[in-house]
Amino acid sequence: MERPRYFEDYELDEVRHTHGRTISETDFVVHAGHTGDFFPHHMDAEFMKTTPFGQRIAHGTMIFAIGIGLTASEINPHAFTYGYDRLRFPKPVFIGDTIHTVLTVSALLPDPKRPGKGIVTESCRVMNQRGETVMACDHLLLADCRPA
Amino acid sequence: MERPRYFEDYELDEVRHTHGRTISETDFVVHAGHTGDFFPHHMDAEFMKTTPFGQRIAHGTMIFAIGIGLTASEINPHAFTYGYDRLRFPKPVFIGDTIHTVLTVSALLPDPKRPGKGIVTESCRVMNQRGETVMACDHLLLADCRPA
Amino acid sequence: MERPRYFEDYELDEVRHTHGRTISETDFVVHAGHTGDFFPHHMDAEFMKTTPFGQRIAHGTMIFAIGIGLTASEINPHAFTYGYDRLRFPKPVFIGDTIHTVLTVSALLPDPKRPGKGIVTESCRVMNQRGETVMACDHLLLADCRPA
Amino acid sequence: MERPRYFEDYELDEVRHTHGRTISETDFVVHAGHTGDFFPHHMDAEFMKTTPFGQRIAHGTMIFAIGIGLTASEINPHAFTYGYDRLRFPKPVFIGDTIHTVLTVSALLPDPKRPGKGIVTESCRVMNQRGETVMACDHLLLADCRPA
Amino acid sequence: MERPRYFEDYELDEVRHTHGRTISETDFVVHAGHTGDFFPHHMDAEFMKTTPFGQRIAHGTMIFAIGIGLTASEINPHAFTYGYDRLRFPKPVFIGDTIHTVLTVSALLPDPKRPGKGIVTESCRVMNQRGETVMACDHLLLADCRPA
Amino acid sequence: MERPRYFEDYELDEVRHTHGRTISETDFVVHAGHTGDFFPHHMDAEFMKTTPFGQRIAHGTMIFAIGIGLTASEINPHAFTYGYDRLRFPKPVFIGDTIHTVLTVSALLPDPKRPGKGIVTESCRVMNQRGETVMACDHLLLADCRPA
Repeated sequence: MERPRYFEDYELDEVRHTHGRTISETDFVVHAGHTGDFFPHHMDAEFMKTTPFGQRIAHGTMIFAIGIGLTASEINPHAFTYGYDRLRFPKPVFIGDTIHTVLTVSALLPDPKRPGKGIVTESCRVMNQRGETVMACDHLLLADCRPA
Repeated sequence: MERPRYFEDYELDEVRHTHGRTISETDFVVHAGHTGDFFPHHMDAEFMKTTPFGQRIAHGTMIFAIGIGLTASEINPHAFTYGYDRLRFPKPVFIGDTIHTVLTVSALLPDPKRPGKGIVTESCRVMNQRGETVMACDHLLLADCRPA
Repeated sequence: MERPRYFEDYELDEVRHTHGRTISETDFVVHAGHTGDFFPHHMDAEFMKTTPFGQRIAHGTMIFAIGIGLTASEINPHAFTYGYDRLRFPKPVFIGDTIHTVLTVSALLPDPKRPGKGIVTESCRVMNQRGETVMACDHLLLADCRPA
Repeated sequence: MERPRYFEDYELDEVRHTHGRTISETDFVVHAGHTGDFFPHHMDAEFMKTTPFGQRIAHGTMIFAIGIGLTASEINPHAFTYGYDRLRFPKPVFIGDTIHTVLTVSALLPDPKRPGKGIVTESCRVMNQRGETVMACDHLLLADCRPA
Repeated sequence: MERPRYFEDYELDEVRHTHGRTISETDFVVHAGHTGDFFPHHMDAEFMKTTPFGQRIAHGTMIFAIGIGLTASEINPHAFTYGYDRLRFPKPVFIGDTIHTVLTVSALLPDPKRPGKGIVTESCRVMNQRGETVMACDHLLLADCRPA
Repeated sequence: MERPRYFEDYELDEVRHTHGRTISETDFVVHAGHTGDFFPHHMDAEFMKTTPFGQRIAHGTMIFAIGIGLTASEINPHAFTYGYDRLRFPKPVFIGDTIHTVLTVSALLPDPKRPGKGIVTESCRVMNQRGETVMACDHLLLADCRPA
């Protein structure tokens, strides 16, 4: 649903938790087919038995796409994505893991180049059912300042 | 196919171009369904006619997933992804655009924390058929140094 | 295949059984992606462990779409769907259940508004492998009467 | 997101509009593959040129699944679907049409069989970009009454 | 539906025509994702503009899979596929073409190695909307002889 | 990646092994949906329990499409597929099996009808994780002879 917010409406340290989603073998197969990345790390259970992981691991690009997708429940018409920084995957995601995303507003800065805009930094952490962080990044939003 | 390369085998400024891929309406629909992000920017042609874009625009997460997926044609068993930095989307991707990815080795640094490893920075640029950059990021690879 | 039948060719209480189909986790994921309904009841195995169901349950709309889809093996060029009445879901469908549909002609009435047409009511019951009804509805068909 | 509401919190005639979604050829193909219904009305453009429709028409089950799916933006933990009544498809949906759903609370009745529960009837109308109703039904919700 | 037939029930030169199906861009994308074959002939519209085809052409494996799939409308419990011979693709299939399959029983031979079985050869031709053959093969079925 | 080879560059008995891929229930469901073949052999686990197989078996057309798809890692601009001969499925593929393809150049013949072309026969064998051949065929390639 729509939730209009100006730059001034964001508060430092505000936190939002998404619903959870169980990552299935289907997601692995769909992501391989969507991206064309059929590397055996994601697709060959026999090969992965011979590695320390012991089983197939999710594509990083999938955890990013689904982890960010989980946050897409409210639309702010006054903001749009500027980019993402420091995207990291500290732990693997396995078939059957359940992930959710925690968003924390970690910085609020006026945009030095665009008058009337501010940069909202949302720290994104994707967590699994064991409370481990499996992905982290900073989501940069460009938000309109409230009209004078 | 497999192409084993040690940290020392990478060369600064070496460039790789991927094949191209036409981004279809199907990719939009598959990505929405894969991620759960059905925002009208990607899914509502009537709404988008009322915006400056004039038509639906691709999810940033899709251009990232497919743009990186295009590079997945050779496996280096001596390297793995550490993360991505400065992910940006300077231009929108529309239905029917054809993209490919250009990888340039832009930095080669020993890993200060992990002896025997080096950090390869691949600058990734996803280009459309008009020669415009629609996505850019730095891909950080952790590569084994050649055994002494 | 085509099987032309006029209104007069239907018989009260005639019964048709479809083939069976095992409902997989894939179907859950595809249906969520197709409809945009990622509610945790269907997608979050951890959450569902905390409920009386103990596991994910299928979308009602999926059991309807697949249950009716199972009947789509013969085309009658003299009839088309008018609508569905009293659609109910008395039992949940879990991943791994196998369903089939039983159609019974339960009413045959001349169409009061459309001369030359009759209304065929097919009572649809979707059953699981334990013999339980998991979905029921009345399918209303508008069929041409046999030309004089 | 979650929005807890008791039976008493619903108001007669309250209305909710969903976002829009453009129905693509992809949706037709995905739905056929999901349900197994490959009838030529949905899948054979050449055949449909010979009919009054002139082009492929959407599966009714798809418009139901997507039309209801569009409403799945807020979860009420105090209510669940009891069923659907009088599902009708007054107009066809073509490839490229954009639909949204309008929900109106049209009846609020205590449940005669289940003390402490009420039945909320949401009248659902799926509309296209020309303002035509392409699907209508009554969605019956069983909602908890507010604890005394 | 089921249609039991013994070897003796097949007749030389009997012909069956399937329904038609329009091959969409979605089918191209799904097939690439299903098989991992993202060759530019199927996926890169810009590249194909530079070739004599002028546009993307379907994977041969897709025309085989869909062309044979179109025949899967009746199950014979007394026969199963032994293999396929002389699979050829005399013409390309483009996005938007509508195909159907014509099956002709072209040979009926007792199985020299398996007493009580016969080999039914079905000549399969996949045709497009211009009446051109886009795929041909011989489908070999092993069928039970009628019990004495 | 591209690997240009003329007819003269192929050597008799040269062998290529592909990566492996685990065939999942998702692949079964995707293939049924892609082709429209929902026969209970592939889709009904309860029915298959009553057969000697004991479980669902893969579509032959899927093993062909994926088995050949696994070989699509290098493009030879001087060759294209002429057809396939003697396609056989000696063993079933079950959900969870991991397959790879072995290609052996088994014949190299000048094309009698097309001067300047040669026919390369690649014997394709799809193997499972138990070393069994689950599919075999001859892939015929038409390759340009090296310009004089």
